[in-house]
Amino acid sequence: MKPVDLHKDSIVIDGLLCAKWSRKLFEDMAKGGLTAANCTVSFWENFQNTINNVVEMNQLIETNSDLMIKVHTTEDIHRAKREGKTGVIMGFQNTYAYEDQIGYVQIFKDLGVGIVQMCYNTQNLVGTGCYERDGGLSDFGREIVAEMNRVGVLCDLSHVGSKTSEEVILESKQPVAYSHCLPNGLKEHPRNKSDQELKFIADHGGFVGVTMFTPFLKNGISSTIEDYVEAIDYIYNIVGEDNIGIGTDFTQDQDQSFFEYLTHDKGYARRLTRFGEIINPKGIRTVGEFPNLTEALLTKGFSERQVRKIMGENWLTLLKKVWGE
Amino acid sequence: MKPVDLHKDSIVIDGLLCAKWSRKLFEDMAKGGLTAANCTVSFWENFQNTINNVVEMNQLIETNSDLMIKVHTTEDIHRAKREGKTGVIMGFQNTYAYEDQIGYVQIFKDLGVGIVQMCYNTQNLVGTGCYERDGGLSDFGREIVAEMNRVGVLCDLSHVGSKTSEEVILESKQPVAYSHCLPNGLKEHPRNKSDQELKFIADHGGFVGVTMFTPFLKNGISSTIEDYVEAIDYIYNIVGEDNIGIGTDFTQDQDQSFFEYLTHDKGYARRLTRFGEIINPKGIRTVGEFPNLTEALLTKGFSERQVRKIMGENWLTLLKKVWGE
Repeated sequence: MKPVDLHKDSIVIDGLLCAKWSRKLFEDMAKGGLTAANCTVSFWENFQNTINNVVEMNQLIETNSDLMIKVHTTEDIHRAKREGKTGVIMGFQNTYAYEDQIGYVQIFKDLGVGIVQMCYNTQNLVGTGCYERDGGLSDFGREIVAEMNRVGVLCDLSHVGSKTSEEVILESKQPVAYSHCLPNGLKEHPRNKSDQELKFIADHGGFVGVTMFTPFLKNGISSTIEDYVEAIDYIYNIVGEDNIGIGTDFTQDQDQSFFEYLTHDKGYARRLTRFGEIINPKGIRTVGEFPNLTEALLTKGFSERQVRKIMGENWLTLLKKVWGE
Repeated sequence: MKPVDLHKDSIVIDGLLCAKWSRKLFEDMAKGGLTAANCTVSFWENFQNTINNVVEMNQLIETNSDLMIKVHTTEDIHRAKREGKTGVIMGFQNTYAYEDQIGYVQIFKDLGVGIVQMCYNTQNLVGTGCYERDGGLSDFGREIVAEMNRVGVLCDLSHVGSKTSEEVILESKQPVAYSHCLPNGLKEHPRNKSDQELKFIADHGGFVGVTMFTPFLKNGISSTIEDYVEAIDYIYNIVGEDNIGIGTDFTQDQDQSFFEYLTHDKGYARRLTRFGEIINPKGIRTVGEFPNLTEALLTKGFSERQVRKIMGENWLTLLKKVWGE
């Protein structure tokens, strides 16, 4: 099968997108052949502001229903594939939107939020993020993990601190994920994961989505799609062919104020980090270039079967397991 | 001077009261000769529910203005003494009401909230309480401490974990307090403080208010006012005569649902502790019996000057220093 045909035939799932949502972006997702994507609707926002983001996303999906559908179950992802549309899995990069209410896990799940990161960069009620000293999973955090397990929400650990991550992996009765990360083995960075951490999550049935965010790639903004594939291959060799997928972290069409929001605690307090210029790897600068990734993986030597798994089938299996439907 | 006259002449400050606010209670505070008290208006409540509590307290003070005045500055405490009224210092036992907004420190200060405990029993955005593993003061917590210092809000550490407490003591540019605690030296309890902790806060210019909450006293509900004075004496011998005061923790007229609220994380989640029956020490079962404490301290051998300091003057000096007015 030609790369372009394989891509068209595959279920393609992006485990993390936080782009500027618009028809223009949705058209590019269609061009990229995305079957579904985990679309962030909460970073630092509290309950009510997150609800407002969900309202906005609902309206965007409704207005662009020729291109998009909302995903509640993996059957919705299959339907997106059949209908040639892209499914929106709403996701959080923080549990802050749950505030102090365990019951909000169910509320948001009913609204379509199926993937939630435990902490975003810093400490919250549940644990601590990767940009400060990490005291581990709190006792309230254990209650939240149990409720996410019960309700069927995937625990995401990408921006979570090392100790909290390890304890969530041990606490969760369901597999958990780094939805979008890169290996420390290729570049040392607080956001990147050590070989031990990658092995630990896989050994516990967990999952690793590989990002291409260039500040965390060894060649920075000079990176190409080959550097991205190198990172995928690196992680593949640690976690194996069933536990790996894609989580690009595309921030397409976002402006500087968005990055300022992300890189300050609570969106406005002290600065946590600086990304510098954001330029995606050559060959996959935009969501629309997603088919190049299938080709690059084949070129690297992955088989068609392996490429299908990496590009989306593994994500689908994981979500089916965690969501139960 | 007779004990009763000394009590009447003294400035009497209770560093922690979380009673059921009512005219009946205010009359008992008058009977007890209280010049001012730190009155809790937030435990687990978020911003808006805390504002509602402040509204309720404002209305109670207004309705009972023959007995009560609101305290913004230490001059208000002096005025309460002159007018024979009791001053209400509004206080929080948690920073949760600040939510993620550093600017809310000033908002609540302007409303009369001058004493705020960093954590209530468990982890929040700032640090961790004394009923779970404590990873220390978060980086956001350091920003909150700096803002409390700037605005003039006393950092209270009574229910805060050991590590977070130590780091707040080191971080704060102003003296901080255990507003209501007892020594581990007389009874081991997660809420009680070790000799080292008591010495550490005093060595850093901090303050210790002594509670009489019987679950933390060695004789439990069989305790008498003499047991309370023993604890005061114990702490006095560690921290010295300038750094000690009273923080009773009177929960007068509260019902069982109130204690259920306190003893569950967030007011409803997992149980943290059980107090059992709450009976205050014989001799000081009610706020109205406060004059007995002056007498019992004299009987123990404290001088009039020392009793005045313990009963309120030290609190006044501390608040003047932290509030700046």
